[in-house]
Amino acid sequence: MMSSFPHRNLLGINQLQAGEILYLLDEAEQWLAFNRQPRKRDERLAGLTIINIFFENSTRTLLSFEIAGKRLGAQVVNMRTAQSSLNKGESLVDTALTLGAMRPDVLVIRHATAGVPQEIAGLVGCSVINAGDGTGEHPTQALLDALTIRRRKGRIDGLKIAICGDIRHSRVARSNLLCLPRLGAEVRVVGPDSLLPDELGGIASFTDMDEGIEGADIVMMLRIQRERMPDIAPESLGDFYRLYGLSRERLARAAPDAIVMHPGPINRGVEIDGEIADDPDRSAILDQVEAGVATRMACLDLLTRASRDLAP
Amino acid sequence: MMSSFPHRNLLGINQLQAGEILYLLDEAEQWLAFNRQPRKRDERLAGLTIINIFFENSTRTLLSFEIAGKRLGAQVVNMRTAQSSLNKGESLVDTALTLGAMRPDVLVIRHATAGVPQEIAGLVGCSVINAGDGTGEHPTQALLDALTIRRRKGRIDGLKIAICGDIRHSRVARSNLLCLPRLGAEVRVVGPDSLLPDELGGIASFTDMDEGIEGADIVMMLRIQRERMPDIAPESLGDFYRLYGLSRERLARAAPDAIVMHPGPINRGVEIDGEIADDPDRSAILDQVEAGVATRMACLDLLTRASRDLAP
Amino acid sequence: MMSSFPHRNLLGINQLQAGEILYLLDEAEQWLAFNRQPRKRDERLAGLTIINIFFENSTRTLLSFEIAGKRLGAQVVNMRTAQSSLNKGESLVDTALTLGAMRPDVLVIRHATAGVPQEIAGLVGCSVINAGDGTGEHPTQALLDALTIRRRKGRIDGLKIAICGDIRHSRVARSNLLCLPRLGAEVRVVGPDSLLPDELGGIASFTDMDEGIEGADIVMMLRIQRERMPDIAPESLGDFYRLYGLSRERLARAAPDAIVMHPGPINRGVEIDGEIADDPDRSAILDQVEAGVATRMACLDLLTRASRDLAP
Repeated sequence: MMSSFPHRNLLGINQLQAGEILYLLDEAEQWLAFNRQPRKRDERLAGLTIINIFFENSTRTLLSFEIAGKRLGAQVVNMRTAQSSLNKGESLVDTALTLGAMRPDVLVIRHATAGVPQEIAGLVGCSVINAGDGTGEHPTQALLDALTIRRRKGRIDGLKIAICGDIRHSRVARSNLLCLPRLGAEVRVVGPDSLLPDELGGIASFTDMDEGIEGADIVMMLRIQRERMPDIAPESLGDFYRLYGLSRERLARAAPDAIVMHPGPINRGVEIDGEIADDPDRSAILDQVEAGVATRMACLDLLTRASRDLAP
Repeated sequence: MMSSFPHRNLLGINQLQAGEILYLLDEAEQWLAFNRQPRKRDERLAGLTIINIFFENSTRTLLSFEIAGKRLGAQVVNMRTAQSSLNKGESLVDTALTLGAMRPDVLVIRHATAGVPQEIAGLVGCSVINAGDGTGEHPTQALLDALTIRRRKGRIDGLKIAICGDIRHSRVARSNLLCLPRLGAEVRVVGPDSLLPDELGGIASFTDMDEGIEGADIVMMLRIQRERMPDIAPESLGDFYRLYGLSRERLARAAPDAIVMHPGPINRGVEIDGEIADDPDRSAILDQVEAGVATRMACLDLLTRASRDLAP
Repeated sequence: MMSSFPHRNLLGINQLQAGEILYLLDEAEQWLAFNRQPRKRDERLAGLTIINIFFENSTRTLLSFEIAGKRLGAQVVNMRTAQSSLNKGESLVDTALTLGAMRPDVLVIRHATAGVPQEIAGLVGCSVINAGDGTGEHPTQALLDALTIRRRKGRIDGLKIAICGDIRHSRVARSNLLCLPRLGAEVRVVGPDSLLPDELGGIASFTDMDEGIEGADIVMMLRIQRERMPDIAPESLGDFYRLYGLSRERLARAAPDAIVMHPGPINRGVEIDGEIADDPDRSAILDQVEAGVATRMACLDLLTRASRDLAP
């Protein structure tokens, strides 16, 4: 049987064509409905082993992948840095080869260095999912964002989407900048000069927040990551909020029915007004979390479909 | 079908009527027998997701809940503080909302601050179990204690029960003080003045240990938690034992067939003589651990019964 | 039905007769094939609870046991030191008794002190597997090594096997020195005088590496554990490699078709040339990892077989 999703790995959005993304979103849509039932267990991944390898801490992404795998019947095991052999000086390559020799079916990898999931995918014989690699990509986040937008707005094509904050260091921004234009959205980025990327590949950029979100259908805020911005003193976070934070007043510049998104965890009062985050009409932040589990279920299912067909 | 246990959350003993407690103990009794079989797996929670959120470390309680959930066929995932988004400054409310959006069926919460499980229960759409909140409550501990007493003594009604040690700071004491009198026991507390609560609501109190345990059917010792008693120097732990520790000699003051209990982990030679703890005729400490898994299975089953009925 | 493996615990190789080891290897062989299938789930341990108690960090061994248990359908829970009650001063005996009261079927124990698994086995009513105890034993490692050798060489009997490095402090060496001669291999140890054991029980020893591996069919390298060799300064690791590291040149001294093994994690350039480790014709290091999961599945299955027969 032909699969409409001819990939074994999900390393970045770049590898996906628009039709493949939309196919994956359709699949995720079904899992979203499935997850709202009292019983949420499907056996399609029974007998498959998923190893979640998180070299960087991330409660929400790890939980999301773990729940996604278990709801599909897989055996899920977690490996976190603090307890890793890396502490004993083992190289990343050796860790990857070792895990691969345990015959997993999927490795889900988060690492502080861009390119690590790609490198590991070249070494092992199973599916690899990039769950965030340094300032590289975070493809499942972009996919869940696209799903959230499509559900809230009924479409992605033609929407005006402003991505705001530390664009330069954000893998969430990077994956979204690859995904959303591919689906027909008109994307722009907003942030201080020092936090905009050098290369924008035709994407419009604004250093003035009020201008940047003018008329936007979607205002996608990014998390301020202080560890990545050593030049911003704690006392100047107030300045940041004044210039680039999302207040009610500023949100009025966007489209009247604009939706606010954020990959979480949010810093209330730093990059976003807590009241906006809590407003179910404007904020899609919890929709994103819910879409995350469904999207990851779709990824796990689609990426392993071909290899599962080999099963008796 | 009517349920005899009309609760979705277990936040404290206060919410339970005597009949409901006894119904839960009857259910737990069945699981106790079940757990002694070679095969210990029931599928009633298949397709349900339980998230154990432990903001405070607790090996035994976490393991107990994890095993309970898995024996009922649930998908169980653990989240521990050290790896939580809270480290990134996320608020408790946002953590709760985020977890809730992953569509769990039960959140089991331990937190160092009293009231946190209640607060979270108001924010999410699933069952919440309080696994210990600061100096608040620890309802499953009181329920497993009641089960242990009933099995050892055949009844709870009419028994003399002395709870000894740091009553003031103990959530175990607090929950037992709500539970045991409701089931007809005659409860008294024993400890130094500084470790007795200001309000006792009619419960008898003793500062002299020998007097306090006089004729008791059950001597329930509490754990000395040094971190909660900064005014007790390590060198004065010997003094504590002399005044309030449970020695063989002192135990002779209780009823001839008195049973000793302790929520664990025990400090041998600090609050209890190791020999007493190891005497199977007097010590019910391991019975408590065993009852813990069974009691938590009953809680997980009963609290989710109504919502599971919605399943096709 | 008679079992050919009349053991409930696996505490050390010493307890096993040659015929029992070979029977276990035959069983492991089947799981090796099983694990290469797309679907890897057998239900024979359904309803059994395995607790992995790791007082020492070990990613690979813990993952290996966790995956082994899950592929056989067991409920697997992990307990790691950092979050253990031991931090609260609980004694090892009390931890063991507490875990035993939760009615597990298997405890898998790693501890920094030799003899701990034996001690715990005397306290609990379930199977205990030693997953490495200080400088004591690491029986599943020796079994997976034997399986790897037999698969690579078609036999163990009559092979010349050189175990090289820090023999004195290595539980891997100790278990192999008990296992391989029992299966008919001619074993010798190689290392500096200070790292050889006082008692060798008839095993040949060499302090010259070139001599020691002369004609060997198997060169089994051990991991240099700096924490166990405080007298070796970091700058002298180069000296160690020159004297006892496995280089291509040195490997030429062994048999022409010699196989190289290492329990991992490897220190490239400290005890072994990275190129040798990566050569699939010479290195069996990843075979060892793969054999590890299969061997642990065989152990879990065989050790619980008698008690499972009691199940209805």
